[in-house]
Amino acid sequence: MQRLEKLRTSIAEQGLDAVLVSQPENIRYLSGFTGSSGWLLISPTKAILATDFRYTEQAKRESTGFEIFQIKQDLHSWLPGLVADLGCHKLGFEANSVSYETYRKLTEAIQAKQIHIELAATTGLVERIRSVKEPEELKSIMHAAELADAAFEKAKTIIRPGMTEKEAAWQIEKLLREAGSEELPFEIILASGANAALPHARSTDKAIQLGEPVLIDMGARINGYCSDFTRTLFLGAADKSFREIYNIVLKAQCTAIERIEAGMAASQADRLARSVIEEAGYGGAFGHGLGHGVGLAVHELPTLNATSSDLLVEGMVFTVEPGIYLAGQAGVRIEDMVVLENGRARVLTKAKKDPVL
Amino acid sequence: MQRLEKLRTSIAEQGLDAVLVSQPENIRYLSGFTGSSGWLLISPTKAILATDFRYTEQAKRESTGFEIFQIKQDLHSWLPGLVADLGCHKLGFEANSVSYETYRKLTEAIQAKQIHIELAATTGLVERIRSVKEPEELKSIMHAAELADAAFEKAKTIIRPGMTEKEAAWQIEKLLREAGSEELPFEIILASGANAALPHARSTDKAIQLGEPVLIDMGARINGYCSDFTRTLFLGAADKSFREIYNIVLKAQCTAIERIEAGMAASQADRLARSVIEEAGYGGAFGHGLGHGVGLAVHELPTLNATSSDLLVEGMVFTVEPGIYLAGQAGVRIEDMVVLENGRARVLTKAKKDPVL
Repeated sequence: MQRLEKLRTSIAEQGLDAVLVSQPENIRYLSGFTGSSGWLLISPTKAILATDFRYTEQAKRESTGFEIFQIKQDLHSWLPGLVADLGCHKLGFEANSVSYETYRKLTEAIQAKQIHIELAATTGLVERIRSVKEPEELKSIMHAAELADAAFEKAKTIIRPGMTEKEAAWQIEKLLREAGSEELPFEIILASGANAALPHARSTDKAIQLGEPVLIDMGARINGYCSDFTRTLFLGAADKSFREIYNIVLKAQCTAIERIEAGMAASQADRLARSVIEEAGYGGAFGHGLGHGVGLAVHELPTLNATSSDLLVEGMVFTVEPGIYLAGQAGVRIEDMVVLENGRARVLTKAKKDPVL
Repeated sequence: MQRLEKLRTSIAEQGLDAVLVSQPENIRYLSGFTGSSGWLLISPTKAILATDFRYTEQAKRESTGFEIFQIKQDLHSWLPGLVADLGCHKLGFEANSVSYETYRKLTEAIQAKQIHIELAATTGLVERIRSVKEPEELKSIMHAAELADAAFEKAKTIIRPGMTEKEAAWQIEKLLREAGSEELPFEIILASGANAALPHARSTDKAIQLGEPVLIDMGARINGYCSDFTRTLFLGAADKSFREIYNIVLKAQCTAIERIEAGMAASQADRLARSVIEEAGYGGAFGHGLGHGVGLAVHELPTLNATSSDLLVEGMVFTVEPGIYLAGQAGVRIEDMVVLENGRARVLTKAKKDPVL
């Protein structure tokens, strides 16, 4: 219940009487509940998991420390009464995961019932707790990272010219799943030739050809925890222009990994890599941020980009993934996951970075 | 552009100058864009797709009828200016998919910039258009249904006592994917014995045993369109109590499928099945609604349950899926997809309903 206590500290700091948790990974993190429909209501003394008939049995199994409250209807029909029964007045809610419509109906219901409840928008309360990993969480993440590394090494022996992107991606997915990964954290991106210039391409029916770059962005999932890494390979002898951009991206990545320190602003980490790419003249071709936290969600806090106000602290796990994308030609991205340990970035994903297949 | 014209009719009916579309399947439906981050701004004369660097190339390929607007920052930083440039004042937004936080920031930005824009909450504008399928859409859905039927028939020859639920679910997933399904619309539910009493169980490491019910809820995806059906099997000779509840569920399902008509209230369709189960004395054990629409999303309009205000009309595709769940013992659900055609329900999923494996 250490996680709940951390949240209760935040609740007190924010001057709230209770908080409604709606974001699915936040619910799982706090309660263990993996169902796709439910809400938590956390006060200084209560921990309630509200879910419907479909998930009640599962909730009892998974969330033993929680009071299970079986709901039949929408949030606005049961929440005001429940909150009033707890004697709570100032109720925090997660403003990034509650829709405007849900908020509106809830406000209406509170007014109609003439209950004295004040709704207070919060952001990141649980996400900030989640961003620093516990040893058990790191273990699952490392397992997911090792599994993806091993699948990638096997994949290199399978990918051959003539195979379509989709077929190659499916072969990798099978390797991951049969090695023990749960449902993948995201659809594998396997993009060849000019498709590699689309940073978030979907794999297509295009055949991979000799003399093309192949960008592979993949990850596994263990106990709900994700891994996420990218390699860009070259089929055959890499041409000079590919070598050039590959080495710039690699230098940017290594520079960032070497120099990132606990206590550094996430925007400063972004700068470390971006300045290498800018100095090489490709600043405009690196159009996304340096990275993102990884845990129960494949994209979570911290956010590493130029405008982030996050601070990188000990125990955070995040990606370092600079890229250069030349529309219509080619793209290179190299991505690893790191954990901040003893003040420095320790790399968790270890697949080789030699680009030539 | 027929879909855009339908939306423009709704925009006019609602007295709006333009609408901001944020829900991913709505975006794909209107524009063809499959990226995971983007917004549409639709006015009587303009159709704009706003997305960031990562997806700009993809957007140009996929959404040829749209003006592509490359964004760098959050919605509130670019939308007010863009809307003002179009001369729009009353802007509809999708209240179920825009978060409270996004709404709040947008409102603040509009005030700060002193632009005359009124935000108007809308719900279901595009979803209602999507609920009636075009012939091309039905073709993809039928393809996805056939593919799932065929995989299920093969799966029956593979599932054997001693196999874990997870292993069996993975074998089915492979069958679906290797027969041409895109990423599955939902994680296959394969629940045996008492786990079948959890309507939305996750597959576990439990071994399937002789003399147990096995509930399999699965679907495929073709061109983005989903299929979704459920069968409950019995491993070995089905005992009398299983036969009893199986036959009640089957009778409830067949009754609903036979009697559903175009023009009927969705709540009335729910009643058709529910009254059969109630009369048999199991009303309390059928704790979910009768069904849901299926299309680009596996759960979409119409909603078939006791409190729904939806009307069932020609061309809608939805599931009919009564169930009986006895906690700690067993569960039975039988689910098919139907299309309303010539006023009646035509069944799209055709896997056999003989429960004995």
